[in-house]
Parts: sequence; C-alpha cells; structure tokens
Amino acid sequence: MPDRAIGIFDSGVGGLTVLQKTRSLLPGRNLVYLGDTARVPYGTKSPEMVKRYALQAADFLVQQKVKMLVVACNTASSDALDALRETFRLPVVGVIEPGAEQAIAITRNKRVGVIGTEGTIQSGAYLKALQQLDPSVAAWGIACPLFVPLAEEGWAGHAVAKMCAEEYLAPLMEHDIDTLVLGCTHYPLLKDILHQDLGPQVQLIDSAEATARKVASLLGGTTLPRAAEPGTTRFFVTDVPNRFCRVGGAFLGADLSAVTQVEIDH
Amino acid sequence: MPDRAIGIFDSGVGGLTVLQKTRSLLPGRNLVYLGDTARVPYGTKSPEMVKRYALQAADFLVQQKVKMLVVACNTASSDALDALRETFRLPVVGVIEPGAEQAIAITRNKRVGVIGTEGTIQSGAYLKALQQLDPSVAAWGIACPLFVPLAEEGWAGHAVAKMCAEEYLAPLMEHDIDTLVLGCTHYPLLKDILHQDLGPQVQLIDSAEATARKVASLLGGTTLPRAAEPGTTRFFVTDVPNRFCRVGGAFLGADLSAVTQVEIDH
Repeated sequence: MPDRAIGIFDSGVGGLTVLQKTRSLLPGRNLVYLGDTARVPYGTKSPEMVKRYALQAADFLVQQKVKMLVVACNTASSDALDALRETFRLPVVGVIEPGAEQAIAITRNKRVGVIGTEGTIQSGAYLKALQQLDPSVAAWGIACPLFVPLAEEGWAGHAVAKMCAEEYLAPLMEHDIDTLVLGCTHYPLLKDILHQDLGPQVQLIDSAEATARKVASLLGGTTLPRAAEPGTTRFFVTDVPNRFCRVGGAFLGADLSAVTQVEIDH
Repeated sequence: MPDRAIGIFDSGVGGLTVLQKTRSLLPGRNLVYLGDTARVPYGTKSPEMVKRYALQAADFLVQQKVKMLVVACNTASSDALDALRETFRLPVVGVIEPGAEQAIAITRNKRVGVIGTEGTIQSGAYLKALQQLDPSVAAWGIACPLFVPLAEEGWAGHAVAKMCAEEYLAPLMEHDIDTLVLGCTHYPLLKDILHQDLGPQVQLIDSAEATARKVASLLGGTTLPRAAEPGTTRFFVTDVPNRFCRVGGAFLGADLSAVTQVEIDH
C-alpha cells in the first residue's frame, strides 16, 4: 500500500517554503500541496473568513486521503488551528507553535520580536504561544504588509525592501530583541536584508524550517528507512496555475509544473 | 417613487475614489457600493476568476434594483465588461473607456503611458481602447504591483513609494510620454509622488474622475434639478467591515460607517 501523503496548504505560494523544507527533511514522503490562489491573500482578511477558507482547504486535502495536515500559513494557523483540530480527525500542525518553541530555545535575553501579516499580528497568536511556553519572555509584534508583495514582486533584495525593513523593524530594535520570528511563510525570502538590517546579534527564526522539523518528529524523525524512490509531490491551486507557477518557482527554488486547478468553495 | 440607485463595485476600497467623484458630481443621486473584500484583490487573479467574481458582485447590485452598474475596478473592467454587458440588461460603465478617451483628448505628442495591476496590464485593455480611439497613438503599459499595498498601508507619500515610482516609471519616461493613465482606482492616492517623479510635462489621467463624468453624462449631465435632499449612499462588503472602514476612510476622504456584510459567492 502506498504511503499516505502529508497535506500542506497555504493561501498561495508562501507555504512552498514549508513544503521545500519538509521535502528536504523527508525526501521519501509523498506530499500534496494546495494554494488557495482564488482567495489569496489571507493576511488582510478577517479571522472569520480565514477560518472558513482554511476549513475548505483542509477538507479538500482530507479528500485526497492525507494522513496529516500542515497549515503552512501563519494567518490560517493563527485564526483556524482550533477549528481545524475540532473538525478533522488527523494530526494538524501549524507554523506558530514550532516557531515559538524555537524562539524560546534560542533567545538569551528573553526579548523576542515577531513580524507577520496584519491578520497574524492582530491575532496575537505568537505572543500567546511564547508566553505560554515561557511567561518570563517579553515579545513584541509588528505587521509588515509590504513584505509579501515585495517577495512576490521578486524585490526581496531590492533597495525598496531594505528601506521597508528599516522602517518596520526600527521599533523592534528599540526593544533590544535578540531573536526575530519570521511569522509569515513569505519572509524567508527576505532573510538576507533582514540580517543586514538587524545585524548579527539578532537570530532569525524561520518558521518554515521549524515546522518541517516538527512534522518530521511527529512522523518518527528523519531516520526513516530510506525509500528506494523519492516521494511524489502533487500541487493544486484554486485559480488558474500560471501565476502560481511563475511566482512559486522562486519560493521553491525549482521549476513548478503539473499544477492542477480545483474548486473548493462549496 | 424614489430614484433608483447607481450601483458601483470594486474588489475592495479602491473603487471608493470613483464613488467619491460620482457623489461630488451628482450629489442628489442615490448610490450603492459593494467591495468584494472576501476575495480582494482582483489584480493578481486570472481573467476567468475575475469574471466570475465580477458577475457575482454585479448580480448582488442588480438585486438591489440599481439602474446602472459602474465597474469601479480596472482589473474587472479589463476582464469582465463584455460578460457583464451580455448578462445584465442595464447600462454598464467601466473605468477603461473613460480613462482612454480622456488620454486621447489630452495627449499632444500621442505618446501615452498606462500603469495598473498585473491583471489590467496583461489584459492589454487600455492599449486596445487607446488604439481603437486613435490608431496613431503609441502606448506602453507597466504593471506596478506595489502601489496598491503602498496606498493601503497609508504610505502614498513615503520615501518607499517614491523609490518604487522611480523604478516602475523609468521605462515609460524613456518613451517620452506626455500623458499617464492611472489605470487602477488606488492610484489617485499616489498622484503627488507621481507628479514629482514625472515632472509637470506629463499629465496624469485619473480614471475615477473620467468615469464619474461618464456616469453623469449618461444620466443627463450634472445639470439635474437640484434635489431638495442629498442622495443616500449604502455600503456593502463581503468580509467583515473593520478593515474596509479603516482603510477606506483615506480613499473616501471621510469616515466610513454603516457598512453591511453580505454573501455573494453562490
């Protein structure tokens, strides 16, 4: 019997950073990815709407007989994780908890910054997760709405991105943070300019990486018997695939093809 | 019998620039505005998806018994105008034709630039409209995907917006244009920095203004008998209203309240 796939979803291309890290940790596993490109982005939508969309996305993946759901979107993890866990009888992994756990493990001065979409920051989900793991940690969140369009425009290394980073991060620097959680799956593309702006004393937490490690540990670690063949990856989107393929290639670090359009809004 | 309203829709807040111009030209008219905030933006979605959403939005307004449909969104005007005119038996006004007509009337050297979303520019709708009106006009389009998030972030006058404008507009300047069509209803907020960047020799065409004048002329001009009372304006959105009210205030130049959430995706 073939190994049942791991289901991963996001509003669009951002979650491909999670898919890529998962694939490199677990090369023998089968993966199914859904990008809800007909309704992208989730980051500016209300919690109610994000919950509704996330349940529809998860429902599609469950129909694909996945054995685990990975919510590769910080906004959906912030707003919909409880609803997903109540609705579906399979393990549901979000990106918030793994990111928060890693931040707690790494911070020395217990001062942590979080950047994300409007939705993620307004939800306070990271601050809550950090506080629950260690009440002595102080944390501050800043919404950076221009980072997603900058990453999608291919301007992650552009002078415009640098100027945005300076503007957004200045208040966090005043709090003397030593750890910054990249609370949006698009942000790993901006790592270089964030490093430049914050300097070497601030550690960046890539929640895509942390989430992939969590998935691996839930599935028994990366020390599986090496499969004879690499796992398959199937891609689905809710709008026509052209833009997803074009923009997503940069997120995946590889060409994207064989992407199928599906309807999930019923 | 009360005057039937003019129905105006957009994917979100951008069309409020058209609403505002319409209201100032036709203060006695009743207006109904719909922002499809559950699926915003349209500018990065496929023509097929934009058509589907535009038909649903128009259907809602027709149920409100409007006498005219104004498509206050360049992407929807590019992709869905024919479908809307085929489907509904009432006048449908888009933003492309009025903007193109005004550009033709104003240009002296017959070299026109158009800026808009990815969807609007890829459709080639402005270039086609300009060519049909005057085949001797040369036109160039450039997509400026960061302008919408910049306007929504309230950064229309920020140094980041200036740097983006320089980057996006440089190729148009090389073509020695004397007229630039703002082919997105968000862009009037960026007028000042566009003026600064392009200099006084380039005229900006605000398609919101041009569209409002078209609506007024179709309704018999602005020389209507002055109504004893100002017309009413009703606002509907498809996601919860908070963000629409907050961001939309800057577009309307006035406080936004009494906004009702509705479902249109069926």
